[in-house]
Amino acid sequence: MKKKQRDFAIRSLGTCKIPSPLTVGYFKRDDERILSDISIDVRKPFPADRLRSVSLEVAGPRERIYFEPRKVKAAVVSCGGLCPGINDVIRALVMELHFRYGVRNIIGVKYGFQGLIPRYGHEFFELAPEGVKDIQGLGGSILSSSRGSQDIGEMVDALERMNINLFFVIGGDGTMKAAQLITEETAHRKLKIGVIGIPKTIDNDLVLIQKSFGFDTAISEAVKTIQCAHVEAKGGPMGIGLVKLMGRQSGHIAASAALAQGDANFVLIPEEPFDLGGERGFLRQLEKRMMARHHAVIIVAEGAGQNLFARKGPIRRDASGNIRLNDIGVFLKDRIEEYFRKKKIDINLKYIDPSYTIRSVPANASDSILCGVLAQYAVHAGMSGKTGMLVGLVNDTYVHLPFQAVAAQRKTIDPKGNIWMLVLESTGQPLSMKN
Amino acid sequence: MKKKQRDFAIRSLGTCKIPSPLTVGYFKRDDERILSDISIDVRKPFPADRLRSVSLEVAGPRERIYFEPRKVKAAVVSCGGLCPGINDVIRALVMELHFRYGVRNIIGVKYGFQGLIPRYGHEFFELAPEGVKDIQGLGGSILSSSRGSQDIGEMVDALERMNINLFFVIGGDGTMKAAQLITEETAHRKLKIGVIGIPKTIDNDLVLIQKSFGFDTAISEAVKTIQCAHVEAKGGPMGIGLVKLMGRQSGHIAASAALAQGDANFVLIPEEPFDLGGERGFLRQLEKRMMARHHAVIIVAEGAGQNLFARKGPIRRDASGNIRLNDIGVFLKDRIEEYFRKKKIDINLKYIDPSYTIRSVPANASDSILCGVLAQYAVHAGMSGKTGMLVGLVNDTYVHLPFQAVAAQRKTIDPKGNIWMLVLESTGQPLSMKN
Amino acid sequence: MKKKQRDFAIRSLGTCKIPSPLTVGYFKRDDERILSDISIDVRKPFPADRLRSVSLEVAGPRERIYFEPRKVKAAVVSCGGLCPGINDVIRALVMELHFRYGVRNIIGVKYGFQGLIPRYGHEFFELAPEGVKDIQGLGGSILSSSRGSQDIGEMVDALERMNINLFFVIGGDGTMKAAQLITEETAHRKLKIGVIGIPKTIDNDLVLIQKSFGFDTAISEAVKTIQCAHVEAKGGPMGIGLVKLMGRQSGHIAASAALAQGDANFVLIPEEPFDLGGERGFLRQLEKRMMARHHAVIIVAEGAGQNLFARKGPIRRDASGNIRLNDIGVFLKDRIEEYFRKKKIDINLKYIDPSYTIRSVPANASDSILCGVLAQYAVHAGMSGKTGMLVGLVNDTYVHLPFQAVAAQRKTIDPKGNIWMLVLESTGQPLSMKN
Amino acid sequence: MKKKQRDFAIRSLGTCKIPSPLTVGYFKRDDERILSDISIDVRKPFPADRLRSVSLEVAGPRERIYFEPRKVKAAVVSCGGLCPGINDVIRALVMELHFRYGVRNIIGVKYGFQGLIPRYGHEFFELAPEGVKDIQGLGGSILSSSRGSQDIGEMVDALERMNINLFFVIGGDGTMKAAQLITEETAHRKLKIGVIGIPKTIDNDLVLIQKSFGFDTAISEAVKTIQCAHVEAKGGPMGIGLVKLMGRQSGHIAASAALAQGDANFVLIPEEPFDLGGERGFLRQLEKRMMARHHAVIIVAEGAGQNLFARKGPIRRDASGNIRLNDIGVFLKDRIEEYFRKKKIDINLKYIDPSYTIRSVPANASDSILCGVLAQYAVHAGMSGKTGMLVGLVNDTYVHLPFQAVAAQRKTIDPKGNIWMLVLESTGQPLSMKN
Repeated sequence: MKKKQRDFAIRSLGTCKIPSPLTVGYFKRDDERILSDISIDVRKPFPADRLRSVSLEVAGPRERIYFEPRKVKAAVVSCGGLCPGINDVIRALVMELHFRYGVRNIIGVKYGFQGLIPRYGHEFFELAPEGVKDIQGLGGSILSSSRGSQDIGEMVDALERMNINLFFVIGGDGTMKAAQLITEETAHRKLKIGVIGIPKTIDNDLVLIQKSFGFDTAISEAVKTIQCAHVEAKGGPMGIGLVKLMGRQSGHIAASAALAQGDANFVLIPEEPFDLGGERGFLRQLEKRMMARHHAVIIVAEGAGQNLFARKGPIRRDASGNIRLNDIGVFLKDRIEEYFRKKKIDINLKYIDPSYTIRSVPANASDSILCGVLAQYAVHAGMSGKTGMLVGLVNDTYVHLPFQAVAAQRKTIDPKGNIWMLVLESTGQPLSMKN
Repeated sequence: MKKKQRDFAIRSLGTCKIPSPLTVGYFKRDDERILSDISIDVRKPFPADRLRSVSLEVAGPRERIYFEPRKVKAAVVSCGGLCPGINDVIRALVMELHFRYGVRNIIGVKYGFQGLIPRYGHEFFELAPEGVKDIQGLGGSILSSSRGSQDIGEMVDALERMNINLFFVIGGDGTMKAAQLITEETAHRKLKIGVIGIPKTIDNDLVLIQKSFGFDTAISEAVKTIQCAHVEAKGGPMGIGLVKLMGRQSGHIAASAALAQGDANFVLIPEEPFDLGGERGFLRQLEKRMMARHHAVIIVAEGAGQNLFARKGPIRRDASGNIRLNDIGVFLKDRIEEYFRKKKIDINLKYIDPSYTIRSVPANASDSILCGVLAQYAVHAGMSGKTGMLVGLVNDTYVHLPFQAVAAQRKTIDPKGNIWMLVLESTGQPLSMKN
Repeated sequence: MKKKQRDFAIRSLGTCKIPSPLTVGYFKRDDERILSDISIDVRKPFPADRLRSVSLEVAGPRERIYFEPRKVKAAVVSCGGLCPGINDVIRALVMELHFRYGVRNIIGVKYGFQGLIPRYGHEFFELAPEGVKDIQGLGGSILSSSRGSQDIGEMVDALERMNINLFFVIGGDGTMKAAQLITEETAHRKLKIGVIGIPKTIDNDLVLIQKSFGFDTAISEAVKTIQCAHVEAKGGPMGIGLVKLMGRQSGHIAASAALAQGDANFVLIPEEPFDLGGERGFLRQLEKRMMARHHAVIIVAEGAGQNLFARKGPIRRDASGNIRLNDIGVFLKDRIEEYFRKKKIDINLKYIDPSYTIRSVPANASDSILCGVLAQYAVHAGMSGKTGMLVGLVNDTYVHLPFQAVAAQRKTIDPKGNIWMLVLESTGQPLSMKN
Repeated sequence: MKKKQRDFAIRSLGTCKIPSPLTVGYFKRDDERILSDISIDVRKPFPADRLRSVSLEVAGPRERIYFEPRKVKAAVVSCGGLCPGINDVIRALVMELHFRYGVRNIIGVKYGFQGLIPRYGHEFFELAPEGVKDIQGLGGSILSSSRGSQDIGEMVDALERMNINLFFVIGGDGTMKAAQLITEETAHRKLKIGVIGIPKTIDNDLVLIQKSFGFDTAISEAVKTIQCAHVEAKGGPMGIGLVKLMGRQSGHIAASAALAQGDANFVLIPEEPFDLGGERGFLRQLEKRMMARHHAVIIVAEGAGQNLFARKGPIRRDASGNIRLNDIGVFLKDRIEEYFRKKKIDINLKYIDPSYTIRSVPANASDSILCGVLAQYAVHAGMSGKTGMLVGLVNDTYVHLPFQAVAAQRKTIDPKGNIWMLVLESTGQPLSMKN
């Protein structure tokens, strides 16, 4: 139990002695916490020590802070794939540092971690309110991004050389792992650098975290595509609309988009393997649907059905270290067309892959709020000397989490859980498409 | 403590003996519960009995149900003001009843509770999948609505006369109170009628409940208006954009919209009274802002500043029983213009009241999901013989709540809490505008 | 006839001797013209001289230009009310001057004509591609605006003092009149200053001109409001949605929005006076509609029904010289409610005035194209030494028009013409509501 | 000359003897016409007979009509690919026939011309106001569609068998050719069937016609995609956004979208062939751009660059008779990546093909108006006994055109004309990319 509590303990650079300059006066203490696991079974006795073991530190401004604001030099970097809301986060970090704490020295690191490595030749640029005030209307990242980590030592060299005190890192799973290594290296060198993460995953698959920014916007955009697929499916004789959505290891976008729109007839996700052939397999089920209703809408997450591919050679990975997936969208398109061709049934299949247009739109209102609040709390955490942590929303409360807490595993859809059940109810697809 | 637990206990029409027709097989038991209050203070000992006292029943399908689906006659009514998502709820109720449980007899009650009272002459109409499949794209309610309750006895007469078994009630605070009275009257008459609420409040001010449907969409629309107010404020010399948003007793829409957009300089809410005059008062603060920056954006919730009006005569109420508020928007407009006129400062004030256009748009994707899920869970609850309850989202979990649990008080913004602090940080307005 | 031709003749600052730097080589000559009036009646002989009399100079780059680009100093000003697309025009002016002609000296005049008058103290600012590249996504005007003209002499003093060669004026009817006076004053002083107008009227009521920028966007936004009014009208018992739209002297926005949406039952415009009372009057017609269908949507242009007000005292005008209109929206709301109250018929009237939110959104794609093209042609005209003119779209061709050609009268809706007839067909309202 | 006039003459089923039931009383006569070619060159004498030769009949209601409304049976069909606005046209046809003329018998033909051929087994369905009143919010076609013509005799058999008097055909180039053949066959059989076309081409490439419905919406949607491509291009090191847009034989969508957005650096269209290799070729130009600015946005129309493919075997055609194009999008993607790989320059190319999502959205306000007006005029034309014609917008006036007038050739972009020049100015791409 003690072990678990240590897992969620937040590192600190030292004692906070400086009074906060914040005039709004509702401060949080480090010992205000919330429970992580809130389910109970009234038939069983409650494990009394669970409370202490799985509680999380609540985010918020502290009455005393660690850094002298006027002396702080902060840096911001965005890493990995684009995601709606990055600019909202950057804007709010700058606004909060500048207007609430009076930090005047904020540096933007361009092109992700590459920006810290001199040989790439990317220049830094100064971030100030005037330059960021209207960027929440723009998709992407004004700092640009890049995939993959860089040499930890070289990156810490750069932070040290530039006298950075606060390093805000916007990125996903892999980025948080690198941020953890940077934290360790700075600790090893005894540098007083706070490393604070704002987790970014459009797939919404960070463990523990209720909702990551960009996800809500992604669903909104995905829904528009599904509507189009539905229109196309009904637009001609025996129409099939096939949409590939993001979701490498988890089907959250596919599942939520299906729930939002209600026109999907099949949702295929990585967590629920399926067969193509056989009486219970996907193709036969699709045929039944087509015979009964003459049109169908299929949503497939990019990580679904990877078991259907024969692996040739070793696993390949992209610059972020992600396994290169086989293209399930094109594969399904070909196999569906082949299946019906053999059965001499004319179909009209329209295949839509909207990934880039989903991830590069500006954040919607809901995500803008989430981004702004995460950034405000990240600044509070950083100014009070915390490090090696990220801010996140858990059980509808903003908390601090150590990098390791989220990097260990993915939040996937439980094929026996609520969300998937709701999807099955909504689509009417079979409980399983395995023979 | 025991008392509290009873507060959250859910009534039942009787024992569930019929196997659920659901083929998706992940059922919930009544003894699966979640904690309501999840905050802890590690400095204090934990009150061991809190767990049992404030836990809530988790929503979901039950393995055995109370009603024989083929014999069920269900009715749906929408009451009170319009709100984005009502049609999504109606659609999902019908789809779930029809396709998952095989209920074939579903009646739409027109114009709110009026529809149950013969003398109004509104006709019922049949609800079936064909008629509702595309309605999620339409704002408003296909059933229309009306304000105010009707005679409880007459309404139960109508339910009895029509042999309704399941009565789904979409409505706000007042509607839930009426639904509670209907539940009691049906119990008194020993009628086997399940009364299930789907809570609707665009103001998001139901106590306990994390987010009510329509709120997210309302924020999206409010944000567009604030953007316009900002454009107008900057569009001419000394421009002021003044936007009145919904929020009779709570400033949730005003506060969230301000956080989402980040262009507001003043947010005025019912929970935080303010003075107009005096050195610390609103008008003087506005003047300072205008002198410094030459433009300003003000958001005022409709229930804000009611203390500024001299009450003439008795309190007046509308058909829903709500107190008739004085129009703070027009009042502020006049007082601001008067203030600057006296100071001989030319200003350009543009006043925008977008209320009807905010509440009558279709639900966005996020609200569509919420509506669909609430409706699915409402059907599960109804089919398993529960009554006198509503479905809601608490601590990111869908639960059952007795009507009384939410009708007692409002969820307001704590002027010393997180949200308001974030708003103060975001706007830069003073901690207080009371002298 | 000769007289008319002179009316459409375009002034020139002198002979064009400098080869155009444009590498794209399709130039227009001044003698390429189009017909203005294209209707013919095959029963009548064609007036042979009409061709020569009413032809218009075609816009486009000239092979030889008047100004040496590197020596040109250009200024841009936006005047009058906000309108979607002003920023698109500013952006395209700057881009075209900079990248196509190599003009490096471009000045933004702030707050309309006020910006030229020293006592207002507004500073100029430099316009360059970096500062304008993303502004097409912003509503309003980055230059801000103001209403009303200023002293012509003082304004020309400013242009002379700053060595402006090209003065681009974005504005409406009144602005174009002022621009004409500026042109005359510069000619009188023998200044080599080209004055080029880009006409702006959200009401689309410039005579001759097919479509002015911002109108299309305004319709899109107006349509959303009408949809909301329709939802509100159907949302409760006996609902009436009343929408006031822009249109001081012409009903183009009201009429087009009604055609686009198809849900309006009454459209009231300035060009077609109506009675309130009497058997054929509006209120009785509305009552008939309500009795038959139980809901109604009414669109009223702000300049409609001014005959219904008793004039008290002298005509009042705003800073732009426009007559101050009585508020027909609030007036109608009151009269409708009074009418039905007297008849003891309960109605639910929702009044919506979306004007500021319509005019302050960014331009849609169609208007963006129009803005960009108008600006490109304005630059071509200016660089080739033309002055005292504006660019506009006539018979689907971009042409040059002298300021006087459009300032003389308004383009109104012909109550016996196509558009109004289409509106009557679409709404089903009576041919006349005069007794 | 006489010959040309005959080209634009409209066929009639016979004399109009029945007074129009329209209460709005502004009728058009057949001898009211407009000029087709309106350009003049003041240096040259005007060909006096041109006026008579190229004039077009103006659309509008006629004072006397041919058909007895109560006896009319009308049919509506939509053919070819989806396009925003088809449902608006269907809705307005039904509304106009029903409410203005009192036609009560309107049939919807499903799945294009297939719906007239019994062996496909598609059922007809009745069209009435209740069923179509809300369909303008839906993309696609409630009648569905199919590609390709069917046997003319069999189709006329069906019209004859069903006693159709008015046949409204929504479709493109190929559909209008088939409609012409149907007209001839009905004439041959002496059937009193009016065949009226509403031209549909999302590519906007019908000769003579100013703007076809759906084009404006397509541009709006295309612009969103280009914005995303721009965000992606700037989102990573050396980013390239490549967007394929519709346009088989004409680059109107690509060109207009580029003008609307202003972020494209290269636009490739069918009308302007280009080389890939060589110093002036596209790849070298792209490299220069990338070296200078580190990102680029490329728009390619689907029919562009077909000369770059080695033809293998005979020309293949789809069901509509269109030549099957090689996929220039994927081809360019591969060639660009190969080019930079060989040069050892790392690029990040994102390829986006949004075609299905562009064509299946609902019409925007501007297209809704166009659709509604075209349908109203189509009904007027049909009711007054005209046949073998379509309605269209020419020189900003609605006119009647015989089917042959538009079927003969395509409206393409003149590579020496205004639009292309504006695109070159806007993108900054070279005048030619041919060596």
